[in-house]
Amino acid sequence: MIDSFEIPSPDKDLKERVLGVKNASFNISQTSNEERIKCLNHIARQLESNSQLVLNANKKDLQLAQEKGISKSLLSRLKLSREKLSLAIDGIKKVGELTDPIGQIQIKRELSPGLILIRKTVPIGVIGVIFESRPDAVMQISSLAIRSGNAVILKGGSEAFHTNQAIVDVIRAGLCNTSINKNCVCLLKSRKESMAMLNLEKDINLIIPRGSNELVRFIQENTRIPVLGHADGICHLYIDNECNIDLAIKVALDSKIQYPAACNSIETLIIHKDKASEFLIKAMPIFKDKNVQLKGDERAVSLGIQVLADEEDWGKEYLDLILSVKIVDNIDDAISHIQRFSSKHTDGIITANPQNANKFMNNVNSSGVFHNCSTRFADGFRYGFGAEVGISTQITPPRGPVGLEGLVTYKYLLKGQGQISEDFSSGKEIFTHKDLI
Amino acid sequence: MIDSFEIPSPDKDLKERVLGVKNASFNISQTSNEERIKCLNHIARQLESNSQLVLNANKKDLQLAQEKGISKSLLSRLKLSREKLSLAIDGIKKVGELTDPIGQIQIKRELSPGLILIRKTVPIGVIGVIFESRPDAVMQISSLAIRSGNAVILKGGSEAFHTNQAIVDVIRAGLCNTSINKNCVCLLKSRKESMAMLNLEKDINLIIPRGSNELVRFIQENTRIPVLGHADGICHLYIDNECNIDLAIKVALDSKIQYPAACNSIETLIIHKDKASEFLIKAMPIFKDKNVQLKGDERAVSLGIQVLADEEDWGKEYLDLILSVKIVDNIDDAISHIQRFSSKHTDGIITANPQNANKFMNNVNSSGVFHNCSTRFADGFRYGFGAEVGISTQITPPRGPVGLEGLVTYKYLLKGQGQISEDFSSGKEIFTHKDLI
Repeated sequence: MIDSFEIPSPDKDLKERVLGVKNASFNISQTSNEERIKCLNHIARQLESNSQLVLNANKKDLQLAQEKGISKSLLSRLKLSREKLSLAIDGIKKVGELTDPIGQIQIKRELSPGLILIRKTVPIGVIGVIFESRPDAVMQISSLAIRSGNAVILKGGSEAFHTNQAIVDVIRAGLCNTSINKNCVCLLKSRKESMAMLNLEKDINLIIPRGSNELVRFIQENTRIPVLGHADGICHLYIDNECNIDLAIKVALDSKIQYPAACNSIETLIIHKDKASEFLIKAMPIFKDKNVQLKGDERAVSLGIQVLADEEDWGKEYLDLILSVKIVDNIDDAISHIQRFSSKHTDGIITANPQNANKFMNNVNSSGVFHNCSTRFADGFRYGFGAEVGISTQITPPRGPVGLEGLVTYKYLLKGQGQISEDFSSGKEIFTHKDLI
Repeated sequence: MIDSFEIPSPDKDLKERVLGVKNASFNISQTSNEERIKCLNHIARQLESNSQLVLNANKKDLQLAQEKGISKSLLSRLKLSREKLSLAIDGIKKVGELTDPIGQIQIKRELSPGLILIRKTVPIGVIGVIFESRPDAVMQISSLAIRSGNAVILKGGSEAFHTNQAIVDVIRAGLCNTSINKNCVCLLKSRKESMAMLNLEKDINLIIPRGSNELVRFIQENTRIPVLGHADGICHLYIDNECNIDLAIKVALDSKIQYPAACNSIETLIIHKDKASEFLIKAMPIFKDKNVQLKGDERAVSLGIQVLADEEDWGKEYLDLILSVKIVDNIDDAISHIQRFSSKHTDGIITANPQNANKFMNNVNSSGVFHNCSTRFADGFRYGFGAEVGISTQITPPRGPVGLEGLVTYKYLLKGQGQISEDFSSGKEIFTHKDLI
């Protein structure tokens, strides 16, 4: 798959458009909270009154997709019903209701009398978002970018091209009647353009890829622009020896089947040897009933799992109704396995033993570590962030589900009256470092 | 210069040592605040009682350096006097006095009754630090790493090899008598090893390079490990038309000459055309007196600056007593020049006009934007962070001078009682999202 990506040089037309977006980002970064909220409400109204136009464009995409014979699941993601569109438009208004992430004072400190340091949140600038075929993502991402004072360059799946174009046209036309430059939202036309964008590190400040593992990994390896995202979601659930079997089965099942293609679904179940037989006897028929194929290590196979997992299984994100099962001697072995194979997305433990729960929560260094609940809760909306711009599996912040804070940075403002550092080096002046908030 | 770096594969010995550091990082991540403070005080005492050993090693390095004929400034950085050593040991104790950066609760939220989300700061893990010849850096970096519950792999300048080795030996011997694994601090022996370390993305979680621009840029481009640092420090000072000339000269001079090789020293002075003649008539003799060579654009040359700057000058970090001077028609042109050439480290304005100050502070998107004070204040100690692990010029956080927070990340802990996501999708349960702190 990776061979199919290439990074072409950006052509003149793309460079000019991106420069337009960059200039628009300076403009929107200076707008007030009220202006940005007003703008979102205006865009929402425009989309409401132009919804037939958007739905017609979607019909065209659906027809072309059917002619191409794309899969049913892709078709269902692509299809924008009146209800879905209406929900997405409501989402834009809700983004307007989120707290303004810009202009938050994080530090206010007197360094010395009359020399005041302020650390304040500011927009990141220009954000490039590459996403798959869901056309509602255009509305969600654009509204989050506007809310946080950023300009955004979008590249959606080619199957949704007409729908995305119609939505972006309405948004841009709507922006013309606001104080915000319409170039704050820009849609790229081809994969060639989105790949060429990776070269524009002087003009684009953050890339958020939301697509296949291969695409994300390729982007991470081929751009100097910071990337917010995750390639793999290899999540584990460990069933400890002291636990309620029914609760364990319920959570394991939800963690696997509620949405198997999601990054927060589990790929591996780890079971303490003392509980393995009891668990599997009860769980195997239930998993079978839900069409989940189990693959086990040797011990799990000896307990009735029919397919033997190979070494590769432990590092594989199935994104499907397949679950690998490993049996361990103790919690330490479970933690070691997770430290080795986890993609640091989300890993959970089922136990009634509070000490074991603590040990697991402290020693597993994934961005989400869960006790007695489904890994599927690892999500910005469920965490109460109002919206999610992505999930990061890197160790340094931002990590885990990232809300608007992922679209925001900060800068240090220092205001003085002619202070120079030499006076502090010589001892003539001293630092007071008095916090003012 | 870049050609001289190569990334070799790590050999078995290095891999094993790094694995030892990784295991030690798990150990130290679980220690209490008290244990880490006690450990720092113990290390400080050990260094005090073994100071002669360290000073002797430094004498050996100095002798070898003199035989090689290295520059005076490098020699003075390399030399560890009893006073310098004593100050560095005091520094270790002071790091113990900083607030514990670990275990801070950032979010505590009920997602739904009995399902509690906590976001808590945790160590990053294994940090690789590549630095220049100052041997006091070993003590500073090791103590910051221990304070924040991380393990650290150090690579210092080869000139300081014996000194660094002696210091690390004392630290490791000291760690043997504490609850913290001695492998938390490890010194690499060669540039080959430090370059090979860039390949160990599974074992090393953050790289902090503190060296030449070429080295930093090479590292940023050649590792998948996150890098905290900055290559260039191209800082500007803009002298607006409404300002006190004496204050402007004082700040400009300090920003240039207080420590010309520092990243927060200015490389370019931008002057409003209406103030240029007055400023230069007064400033030129002062700069000449301080041995600062001025290079000007055409207008500056017409006002008496003798050397014409070429296009390359605007993007050059001199790290020396050279200053380029540009004359602009208005504040907007100054901001545009800065947006184009600044390395987003620190840029300042001198003005008595509050509106112009605001315009500059809002529109310049560098990590530090200063008004009426020297750019030399851009520093973790001066900002009151207690210590600085590096200065980041990237747009996304952490940016600017980074204190202990750069060595810390966070994770999400979710504790439930068997909750599954399907119950929330079906509407049986609802999210309450009630903040508990």
